Amino acid sequence: MKILVTNDDGIDAPGINALAEALCEVAEVAVVAPDRERSAVSHALTLHHPLRAIKVGQNRYSVDGTPTDCVNLGIHSLLDFHPDIVVSGINRGANLGDDVTYSGTVAAALEATLMGIPAIAFSLATLADDANYSQAASFAVRLAALVIKNGLPKDTFLNVNFPAKGELLSPLITTQGKRRYEGTIVDKVDPRGRSYYWIGTADLDFHDIEGSDYAAIKRGHISITPLHLDMTNHYSIAHLNSWTF
Amino acid sequence: MKILVTNDDGIDAPGINALAEALCEVAEVAVVAPDRERSAVSHALTLHHPLRAIKVGQNRYSVDGTPTDCVNLGIHSLLDFHPDIVVSGINRGANLGDDVTYSGTVAAALEATLMGIPAIAFSLATLADDANYSQAASFAVRLAALVIKNGLPKDTFLNVNFPAKGELLSPLITTQGKRRYEGTIVDKVDPRGRSYYWIGTADLDFHDIEGSDYAAIKRGHISITPLHLDMTNHYSIAHLNSWTF
Repeated sequence: MKILVTNDDGIDAPGINALAEALCEVAEVAVVAPDRERSAVSHALTLHHPLRAIKVGQNRYSVDGTPTDCVNLGIHSLLDFHPDIVVSGINRGANLGDDVTYSGTVAAALEATLMGIPAIAFSLATLADDANYSQAASFAVRLAALVIKNGLPKDTFLNVNFPAKGELLSPLITTQGKRRYEGTIVDKVDPRGRSYYWIGTADLDFHDIEGSDYAAIKRGHISITPLHLDMTNHYSIAHLNSWTF
Repeated sequence: MKILVTNDDGIDAPGINALAEALCEVAEVAVVAPDRERSAVSHALTLHHPLRAIKVGQNRYSVDGTPTDCVNLGIHSLLDFHPDIVVSGINRGANLGDDVTYSGTVAAALEATLMGIPAIAFSLATLADDANYSQAASFAVRLAALVIKNGLPKDTFLNVNFPAKGELLSPLITTQGKRRYEGTIVDKVDPRGRSYYWIGTADLDFHDIEGSDYAAIKRGHISITPLHLDMTNHYSIAHLNSWTF
């Protein structure tokens, strides 16, 4: 197995190191990851300035760009192999429900899927500094091997979330859940008297929909959601065709 | 009608001005847009530093953030009204097929949808500096009024693309098309002898799939694609449930 590993927490994050180390025991692994935390950068691609890649070890590159940039540079320029799979994570914090659209971790898997390479995004549902990624990493190794063996449905990648604590219960195949949306913007005045705004992250609060990623995590299961590149609401096409423009 | 207008080309782009001016004739309009071009920033949200908003006119704000930031700040902090609809664009260049996942224009509409506000993203399929946005803007006004009147299917927004030139043919309800993916990374050496990488944008090249956004634009029609927040590949769930983990 040849595997490209990336993330959005940055190349020095504990989650990516746990993942890469576990994979190294069964595969040839390259790491191409952002040089710093790039959370919530979504599927952003750096078009307006050049990127730098620093070789920080054997098959290990630190890039001053987004996770999507890293997948691009890895595949097209840096790696001396074509990966069988791209894995992203293990993210510090869950990527559930509508939040997948903000996530750099998920976007890296999406980018690989656009290139026709199987991909999985992994996230651990805790922000704790002393989080233990080893159980999640062990499962990630098994799942990566399974995906390479079985293949994935067309244009589809897996978004995997692990519950924060305790024995991991069996994985469930889930649907993308629904966030309870609450804007939390801090509106303050700086030391020079000018207004500033700071977008907050709300607490993990989702609708408890049966079969959803959130419902699985809440009950201690590993959640595996198949996500598709096609965002078309196919069911609405007939309805919209009845409109008079 | 109360309308929030944003984009990803920046507040001084001709497309947003054409759109806002046309809407002003029939609605109360506020503009909250990035202070510079923020193309390809996708659904990125600025979490790690504060944002500034400069009032540059009546109900007109320039923000040093992403389109998603602009929608957040507009709705939660800056506007003195709750909009009936959020419109984004008119983007300089098409947002077709898989490219919707990179687009800041499309992400702004997605963000509004997460907030439960109807939303439309508009793009003109040309990069020409002398592009004429007036025909597209006229249609945008009609479509915005229609969406407010009819409502949109749940968790769904519209991604609208206009062909570059000529008489606009009737709008078609389309599906998200498929890009021919080709990485184009420029790999060069800077004046100080260090390597740099620059991600290129490939030419507009899509599979000509019947009923797709690209097929509509290519034939001179306005393309209207209903996009859904849920990326779950529901069809693959039964298949994945047959895997042994």
